[in-house]
This record gives sequence, C-alpha cells and structure tokens, in this order.
Amino acid sequence: MRNILLHEVGLRDGLQMEAVTVPGAQKLQWLRMLMNSGVDIIQVGSFVHPVKVPQMADTDRLFAELAASGEKPAGVTLSGLVLNEKGLERGLACGVGMFCMGVSASETHSRKNAGMGVGEATERIIAMAREAGAAGIRVQVSVQSAFGCGYEGNVPQERVLGIVRRYCDAGLKNISLADTAGHAVPDQVERMFSAVAALDGDIEPACHFHNTYGLGLANAYAALKAGVGSFESSVAGLGGCPFTKIAGGNVCTEDLVHMFRTMGFRRDVHLDRLIAVAKEMAAYFGRELPGTVYRTGTIMEAGV
Amino acid sequence: MRNILLHEVGLRDGLQMEAVTVPGAQKLQWLRMLMNSGVDIIQVGSFVHPVKVPQMADTDRLFAELAASGEKPAGVTLSGLVLNEKGLERGLACGVGMFCMGVSASETHSRKNAGMGVGEATERIIAMAREAGAAGIRVQVSVQSAFGCGYEGNVPQERVLGIVRRYCDAGLKNISLADTAGHAVPDQVERMFSAVAALDGDIEPACHFHNTYGLGLANAYAALKAGVGSFESSVAGLGGCPFTKIAGGNVCTEDLVHMFRTMGFRRDVHLDRLIAVAKEMAAYFGRELPGTVYRTGTIMEAGV
Repeated sequence: MRNILLHEVGLRDGLQMEAVTVPGAQKLQWLRMLMNSGVDIIQVGSFVHPVKVPQMADTDRLFAELAASGEKPAGVTLSGLVLNEKGLERGLACGVGMFCMGVSASETHSRKNAGMGVGEATERIIAMAREAGAAGIRVQVSVQSAFGCGYEGNVPQERVLGIVRRYCDAGLKNISLADTAGHAVPDQVERMFSAVAALDGDIEPACHFHNTYGLGLANAYAALKAGVGSFESSVAGLGGCPFTKIAGGNVCTEDLVHMFRTMGFRRDVHLDRLIAVAKEMAAYFGRELPGTVYRTGTIMEAGV
Repeated sequence: MRNILLHEVGLRDGLQMEAVTVPGAQKLQWLRMLMNSGVDIIQVGSFVHPVKVPQMADTDRLFAELAASGEKPAGVTLSGLVLNEKGLERGLACGVGMFCMGVSASETHSRKNAGMGVGEATERIIAMAREAGAAGIRVQVSVQSAFGCGYEGNVPQERVLGIVRRYCDAGLKNISLADTAGHAVPDQVERMFSAVAALDGDIEPACHFHNTYGLGLANAYAALKAGVGSFESSVAGLGGCPFTKIAGGNVCTEDLVHMFRTMGFRRDVHLDRLIAVAKEMAAYFGRELPGTVYRTGTIMEAGV
C-alpha cells in the first residue's frame, strides 16, 4: 500500500480567515491534539506582517514554544508559510521544520498578492527556497490558482506546468498545486497531475483543494488516482476560498481521512482525535463548521 | 463524448422524507420546471399505500394529469417506483413511462422493507419486471444497500453481483445500484461497477448515491470512470439516508450537473433552471437545503 502524507493547514489557512484572533494558548491546545492525531505535517502559521494578518502574529512564538517544550513527536513536522525574504528570516530563526512558499499561476492574482508578475515571483521564490534548503530545512514550493482563478477564470494547464518545470530545473521537487479559487474538477485534476508526473518522475506532488462547490473530496480522490502522495487539508474544513461569500471551506481533514480509511489508507491516523478537534473548534467559534463527519459520525460507526 | 442520462428522483426520494405533504399543484409546478430543464427521466412518485406514505398519495393523479395535459416534452420519461404487484397495477393504469423496482442486498433490510428475504424478493421483482415489460413499459431494476447497510454494515460485493446476475439471466439489463445507507466510497464504487460490466457487456448500469458522509460527488465521479451511464440524483439534494439523523441528502442534481458540465458533459442541460427549482424548494420548505451550487453560484459564473 502506497504511503500518503497528511498536511494539516487549518491553523494557518483556516484561522487567518476568522474574524476573531485565536489566542496562542488555544492554538497550542489544538496543536497538541493535532500532533497526537497521526497527521504528518502541521502548518503552525504564516510569517506575514502582524498588522496585515493579526491572526498570525504569534507564529514565531508558537514555533519557539513548541521547540522549547519538546512536545512534538519525532514523526511530526511543523511547517510554516512564508511570502517573502523577511518571513523566511523569521522562520529560520524560530525552528520551522518545513517551509511552504509559492507563486500564483494567474498574473492578476500574482500582482495583487505578491505585487509582481508570475515570472518575477517565481524567481524570487526559487531564491528563497534555495536559501531555506541551504540552511538544511525541508521546502515545499507551490503553484496557487493552479486550477482556475477568482480574477481571471480559466488558467491553462501549460501555464502551471511552466512553473512546475522551472521549479524542477531549480532542483525543487516537492511541489504542491493549490486550487485557491475552488474551481478544480476531478478530470482536470487527473490530467494536471498526470502531466506533472510525466514532466519529471522525481516530483513529489502535493495537492491543496477547497470545497467551495462541493468537489473537494472528488478532487482529492482524482489526485490520489493520479499518484499524488501528499494532501493538504484543514480540520473541520476551516478556511477556504477567498473569492466567494459562501465559506465552502478547505477540504476537511477528518472527512478526507475518513475517505482514505474506508479505502484502506492511513488506518494509523486517530480519526477520533481529529473529530475531537473539529468539535472543539465548532464549540469555540460557536457555529457549525463545514466538515461533515464530525457531525454525522463515521461509516465505521454506522450499522454495526 | 459518451452519453450520460440524468434521472431526477427528488419528487419521490426527497419529498417522501419531508414532514409536510406537498400539495399536487406545487409538485406539478416543480415537475414542469424539471421537464424543461433538460434532465432525461423524472421520478414523479411511488405507488405505495397512501396511509403508509401520505406524501406519495397523489402519484397516480400526477401521472394521469401529466398524460392528459400533453405538457411532457417528447424526450422526457416519467418514472415511478413500485414496491409490489398492487403498485404495479396502479402504475400500469396511469401511464408510467418507466418502472423502477428493486430488492435490497441486505437480508435484514430486505426483511424489514419487503417482509421477505433477498432471494424471494428478487424472484418477485423479476416477475413484476416481466409483467411491466410485457406491457411495453421500460423497466429499471435496482439493488438497494448495494454498498453497505444501515443494519448490517458491510455488504459483500459478491452478494450484489449475485442479484445482478439473476437480473441478467432474466433479461433485465437496466440495473441501478443504490447506496441506500450512504456507505459507498469511491474505490469500492469503481470496483463494483467494473465487476458489473465484466458480468455482462449489455448491462446498462445506473447509480444512486447519497451524500451522507460528503462522498456523493466523489462516488459519482468514480462511477463515471467505471462506465456508469445513468445517474439518479435529487434536486437541491433533498432526501437522503434514512439511517442517520443528519440529513446528508441524495446526491444533488444541480451539483452533479455542475460537475459534469465543468468536465464537458451534458452542456445541453439548463443548469440555471435546476438551480431555480432548488431555490424555490428552499423557499418553500423555509430552510437551507443540502445542495451547494444553488447557494454558491457556479464555477462558470465565478472569476470572469
């Protein structure tokens, strides 16, 4: 049975979209639960300007506290998202286990988000990734808006593959494709990741899907079929597409693990513990969150 | 591009689970909208005892009115669900265009629902199907609880295939597999329908999925990949699994059509008209229904 990596991103991609800033002590409690759930990589936060994204202002401190406490199980990697050189410096200083950084495949999205075009942004990310690699830290590079763009609509596959090729040429093989706008559909996902695999057999493909139009798990299944080995998801389905008013959420971690488990994958993961985090989060935010199985229970519990 | 048939079952499988009985005039209004949406088959209701399922008491009258009015477009088939010989008689008398009938693959479910074991129920359905066929009416036979049972849990694939084989031997090739309990997962769906196709190349496979655990569209995609050509779904995602308290809903018609359209299938269907029905239903029942795109809008509308 092939290995599947689970990359939990809810504390970054989810909490950055919440109106309230969750205190560090609460984040630490959820982080502890997640570290003991069996997922492989947990994104602690992003290194962005604290005025721009106050929800992420304590990212450095969280990394430092977790490093100092020795609580992190040996098999778990703590990742952090960096957008620029300043963020990379902060991340290198506080013990990030894996850097995540990327560019958008959409010119409009790139200019709005990174303040520069796709070509320039790609070279900048490659330079940053090399610096992180030189410091001995794992790096995952990504292509955002890889399946469609909230500003531009359709994003041609060839444009995404061009960035992937550039990453590969720079020796960066851990590559995530993100469906930032939630536009991905399953056959497109299969075609895209098959094309990525055909580019270079050494690529370690990862995926990041939203569930804006209810297609998150279908896309994850399509990615699995096309050989993707690393899945980014968000506990309780927190976060999601920034382009619609309806918060469809990221692909929900416990729903994804539930699907994988019923198919025989990753039975080592403690689904019950992930569900417990989702329930705590729903109670904390005082609303129903997008995840499904934390509300319905699991197929394994049903009918037996 | 291969053909895909869309079989709308919300007015039967959805409305039978609603606490209120929707008046015939309202059903007719929705039926008219659905008949002009581009879906191929519409299930008008079921021929069950009106005391047992009062929501379906007007099924005969609806068929008779639609037959008399001449409103039905030529390309649309109106289907009706029958559970027993009495229902078949009623259906034959009022102009049903396609009979749907089936057995459960689960002994417990069969005894509870049909009052007899699977073997006896299968022979009874085959006799009924032959009678309907002899009258010149299209018949679809089904296997319920084909992917798991709310009472028994796991349902072995071989048990389902045994019923399918029996149908085939009786000359019944239009065969639907229903995920009554919502337990189906995508790789199971692919294996099951691949095995069905291997039994007899003349089988016209159909599928009926619920979305109890959020896997409805993933299962539909898996079925599509495995050669299934007919999809049962429910506008607004009405209905769903009778075994959980959380109404996960049937696979939602407009969400399914949305997925198909983004993949290039069935662009002839008026997605906007399906969404209009879903919105009317949500207003009628005064609550948010399980469907997604009637709330989020479509990928086609986004980012352009």
